[in-house]
Amino acid sequence: MAGSPPGQRLPDGESDQRLLGIDFGGTKMAVGVADLHGRRLYSERVPTYAERGAEQALERALDLAATLVLRAGGRLVAAGIASPGVIRDDGIDLAPNVPGWERLRLADAVRDRFGVSRVAVANDLNAAALAELRLGALRDADPGLVVGLGTGVAAAVTVRGEVVAGFRGAAGEIAYAVAGPTWPEPADSSGPVEPAAMLEAAFAGRALDQLAERLGIAGGAAGLCAAAELPGTARDALLARVDELARHLATCHLLLDPQRVVLVGGVARSDLIRSLLTDRLRQVLPHPPEIVLSSFADDAALLGAVAMAREALPVG
Amino acid sequence: MAGSPPGQRLPDGESDQRLLGIDFGGTKMAVGVADLHGRRLYSERVPTYAERGAEQALERALDLAATLVLRAGGRLVAAGIASPGVIRDDGIDLAPNVPGWERLRLADAVRDRFGVSRVAVANDLNAAALAELRLGALRDADPGLVVGLGTGVAAAVTVRGEVVAGFRGAAGEIAYAVAGPTWPEPADSSGPVEPAAMLEAAFAGRALDQLAERLGIAGGAAGLCAAAELPGTARDALLARVDELARHLATCHLLLDPQRVVLVGGVARSDLIRSLLTDRLRQVLPHPPEIVLSSFADDAALLGAVAMAREALPVG
Repeated sequence: MAGSPPGQRLPDGESDQRLLGIDFGGTKMAVGVADLHGRRLYSERVPTYAERGAEQALERALDLAATLVLRAGGRLVAAGIASPGVIRDDGIDLAPNVPGWERLRLADAVRDRFGVSRVAVANDLNAAALAELRLGALRDADPGLVVGLGTGVAAAVTVRGEVVAGFRGAAGEIAYAVAGPTWPEPADSSGPVEPAAMLEAAFAGRALDQLAERLGIAGGAAGLCAAAELPGTARDALLARVDELARHLATCHLLLDPQRVVLVGGVARSDLIRSLLTDRLRQVLPHPPEIVLSSFADDAALLGAVAMAREALPVG
Repeated sequence: MAGSPPGQRLPDGESDQRLLGIDFGGTKMAVGVADLHGRRLYSERVPTYAERGAEQALERALDLAATLVLRAGGRLVAAGIASPGVIRDDGIDLAPNVPGWERLRLADAVRDRFGVSRVAVANDLNAAALAELRLGALRDADPGLVVGLGTGVAAAVTVRGEVVAGFRGAAGEIAYAVAGPTWPEPADSSGPVEPAAMLEAAFAGRALDQLAERLGIAGGAAGLCAAAELPGTARDALLARVDELARHLATCHLLLDPQRVVLVGGVARSDLIRSLLTDRLRQVLPHPPEIVLSSFADDAALLGAVAMAREALPVG
């Protein structure tokens, strides 16, 4: 967790100031405390237990944050929070993976618990994209495209050194892209589309877990990928899912013409999926894409949350 | 063609300065001469005669430009050129609609003919997007998405008051999006994909002309749209094409979360196509899109070319 050259000293009066970052995920939550340069002092990761609901997840994350802030000493001056979905002041849209998440007021909860006024909240993949821009694979690339393949499927766009949040803060929510061979029938005339027709239903971690189960393969998505190393049913089934994802990523690549595409998330770390996806995109794109894996392992969104905290402070 | 309030006077010494804009299209070319505020003095539109090749089109456009510049009097200080494809210094990529276009050096040709050093060249839909940003439907919208449905299919992205050109100047080239129910077989292992699999082959003006012919409907794309007003074969066939386009525009909308989507081009002016497309997008997008028709009729790219000329001048 580094926002400045490692050797750089903080001026007197700033060395005890602390930044808090929290990354809420559908499977895991990460909490980190950093100094004013964004250098990590303490961090820890705990399971979300999504099926137990949103409130307990938030409470446990705040408890962990309190422990780490206390351990780090000094005083907290800003916090950054990364969350799935589209963050509004009074709730969160499009975050179906943790029941009750839509009702949370994350910024208020952190303000109340820690008495800190500078709290920035952003979509988790947008936070990851900020980490890539400031510290990672997009430092020297413009535009940039970040693709998150984990519990959900999402993307983030960077242009001229900033993450593009979108008009409603919903940029990158490609989970809702139309999958399948025919146009989906809407549940009712007012939409939105049936979840079964969404890209996330074809390619998210859970969707691949279910596909593995259906094929009688043990070990979920990871087992599916292992079985798909050799030709056969598992490979054909996985490739059909990769094709669905590749179709939409091709469109994203064509729209943005990014200098680099960064893959983040648990599913993206499968060498096989990365290789199949890269092959597919090279087959169709007039300009072959540069696709790299995030160098942050699990940490991109947490690092982004800390960067958001840092950038929430007044300049100077 | 207005870049400043209509009544505003130009300072002495600037009132004789002229801007030249040229918009090369696959079907028509437009040339305009404007004052330093971008106010149109003269403009004219001529057919491209694409089948006769690129050289004759360029020569005729330059001849027309010379006539209009002479008519306008004063002295030419900058030019802006809009062209299909991806503009490089030594040629143009991805502009298959006019044979030989890929070998043109448009900026050099204008510099040589008019002895003007400030010449800006951009993709035609990016030029149209600049016109929408400075003078049109995107003046108060961020981000913005422009979708061109004409001889070809393309898009353009605006973020924080600028058009996003992309790393290779290829942003918005969604014509190459993967269409059809299955992954296309590449012509050879190095790609790119067969043109038949491209979105442009499903939805460009020519594709709709061919579809009309195949269905035995006279009048090309316009005839097809007229026939599709009533239920039946024509409507089903058109809707299948709209679905293909809508699928990719849904993904573009999800990626960018634009405040407004502006449709430009001849095909976009079909009320039926606009209405079918809007319905489809409303069915699937979590945030219903605001879709408007460009207010510039045929002129968006030409106005953008003039704006490019204006912005090529030093500030002040």
